[in-house]
Amino acid sequence: MSGNYRRIVLAARPSGMPKDSDFRIEEVPIPEPAEGEVVVRNIFMSIDPYMRGRMREGPSYAPAVQLGELMVGGTAGQVTASRNGRFPEGVYVNGMLGWQEYGVSDGTGLRQLDPAAAPISTSLGILGMPGMTAYFGLLDLGAPQEGETVAVTGAGGAVGALVGQIAKIKGCRAVGLAGTDAKCTYAVDEVGFDACVNYKTAGDLQQAVADACPKGVDVYFDNVGGPVADAVILNLNEFSRVPVCGQIALYNAEEPAMGPRLFFIFLTRRVKVQGFIVSDFAARWGEGLAQMTEWLQQGKLKYKEDIAQGIENAPQALIGVLQGANLGKQLVQLSDAP
Amino acid sequence: MSGNYRRIVLAARPSGMPKDSDFRIEEVPIPEPAEGEVVVRNIFMSIDPYMRGRMREGPSYAPAVQLGELMVGGTAGQVTASRNGRFPEGVYVNGMLGWQEYGVSDGTGLRQLDPAAAPISTSLGILGMPGMTAYFGLLDLGAPQEGETVAVTGAGGAVGALVGQIAKIKGCRAVGLAGTDAKCTYAVDEVGFDACVNYKTAGDLQQAVADACPKGVDVYFDNVGGPVADAVILNLNEFSRVPVCGQIALYNAEEPAMGPRLFFIFLTRRVKVQGFIVSDFAARWGEGLAQMTEWLQQGKLKYKEDIAQGIENAPQALIGVLQGANLGKQLVQLSDAP
Repeated sequence: MSGNYRRIVLAARPSGMPKDSDFRIEEVPIPEPAEGEVVVRNIFMSIDPYMRGRMREGPSYAPAVQLGELMVGGTAGQVTASRNGRFPEGVYVNGMLGWQEYGVSDGTGLRQLDPAAAPISTSLGILGMPGMTAYFGLLDLGAPQEGETVAVTGAGGAVGALVGQIAKIKGCRAVGLAGTDAKCTYAVDEVGFDACVNYKTAGDLQQAVADACPKGVDVYFDNVGGPVADAVILNLNEFSRVPVCGQIALYNAEEPAMGPRLFFIFLTRRVKVQGFIVSDFAARWGEGLAQMTEWLQQGKLKYKEDIAQGIENAPQALIGVLQGANLGKQLVQLSDAP
Repeated sequence: MSGNYRRIVLAARPSGMPKDSDFRIEEVPIPEPAEGEVVVRNIFMSIDPYMRGRMREGPSYAPAVQLGELMVGGTAGQVTASRNGRFPEGVYVNGMLGWQEYGVSDGTGLRQLDPAAAPISTSLGILGMPGMTAYFGLLDLGAPQEGETVAVTGAGGAVGALVGQIAKIKGCRAVGLAGTDAKCTYAVDEVGFDACVNYKTAGDLQQAVADACPKGVDVYFDNVGGPVADAVILNLNEFSRVPVCGQIALYNAEEPAMGPRLFFIFLTRRVKVQGFIVSDFAARWGEGLAQMTEWLQQGKLKYKEDIAQGIENAPQALIGVLQGANLGKQLVQLSDAP
């Protein structure tokens, strides 16, 4: 428990795609817990697209990370020192302790994990924020009905792959869009999508979506925005729903992006478009977690993890996520998992 | 009941703004009713923005008017000959008999009017399609709460003026946008809006809306689309609602219009955008009509009509509506009203 640990702070606000020099690794002493606190050795860090938004000046849907401050993010780790009765030494916990090898917490926002029930990394994926995002976004906002067609972008990513699987559980046709053949193969052969369109090689993307969705699109779960989203939206059916979960195509844009005006489609086809953030459903987290856990234990849900090793690789892992390089949930592993 | 009457058919599909030569007046004999039919002398014809969509080839949200076919539209008139027991000679009826001085109907879609209860022209406005559009669009999709701010474009038009008044009834701040000072003066001084922005003279429109909506916009009832809508959308609050009722700014566009991508705003502010058409609420028309009638009789709703005289002026009346020339509900009067 003595010695130093490494953490990553924001060194500069990125212009466009982040680069290594926008981050800085610092080495600081491992702290001792004060009364009521725990010290956690982080084992996994979550890498998520939303982190790009926090690097931007001014509020996104959450406060910006200030220059010189610790990068935010979800973590799963083990308590190594405790002066908090709720979290004794040795227990595993999920939290938002940021990009660092050790973290201190007064217990707020920590949740104890049972490594015998599921690998602790799942608390950052299928049984964590991405899982709840897919669950509430698709079921509450998308409201898919049996026999309908659900399309989702980022089908090879953590959220998109789950959206497709939940759509299948609900009796829908699930059509993914992804940016590589490897992701599409994974989406169809391993995840269970009915079809997957590689939007980088499809040519006429609107037509490719139409071919993959012969009865049109009833729910479009949008993770990316931009021209790929446009092509799906042009295939929407009357009374369709569009949960807006992410806009990864636009996160690095410095200028407001331009595109076709879509309201005429929304009007004539009576589309409902609704933005959401998973924390809007915080009060119902338990419900979502229970259902996703049950489906996982029943073998109805699969997941894949893309794990980088060592905190020094976290910046490149985030850049990879923003470029669509990951297959499955992107994590960074910092120490041995149970 | 003998003699000829005039009707207007679609002569050519407009390119951009319709012009007189896109319409043709025909003179045809006044028919006799067959068994089960009535002949109606139309007194008022409704002129509405949606008619531009029907002049376009291919389906909008309703079938296109074919070349040489009667222009569609709502009407209020008097039965002059009847072989239908439900609608005896002399009664007043609302229907969709189109741009013609006389029409024949088997009774389908006709509704008897009581001219002692309200002028029959109101069946085309406040107690008709525009009224139900404002009622269901604002209350069902917009769901305004007391103390919130409701913004609406087309504030000088039939629907927009009613949206503002219903917003006031519900305890909201009502802010209009319109394209002339005369409309804005009307909206504030006569209709009862709290403020109205002339979008043609406001300069920085986003700032002008911000000034008129110091607590931001909770419901934006969109009648116009395009850059004016953008300026309001940039002022939306978190968890705001955008019923999409019309896109008059785009109806004459021949190319898909381009504009700023808005999904990032929808995401970060958790906006719900929903297109609708009043016929989606057909099953609840009675509820809306009863409430609007009650508010009208209580003096809580006012309305204004802009009445052109003679069927030959219907094309110019429609062109005027598409250019924003009308103040209040645009009608064409064809014969004496009761």
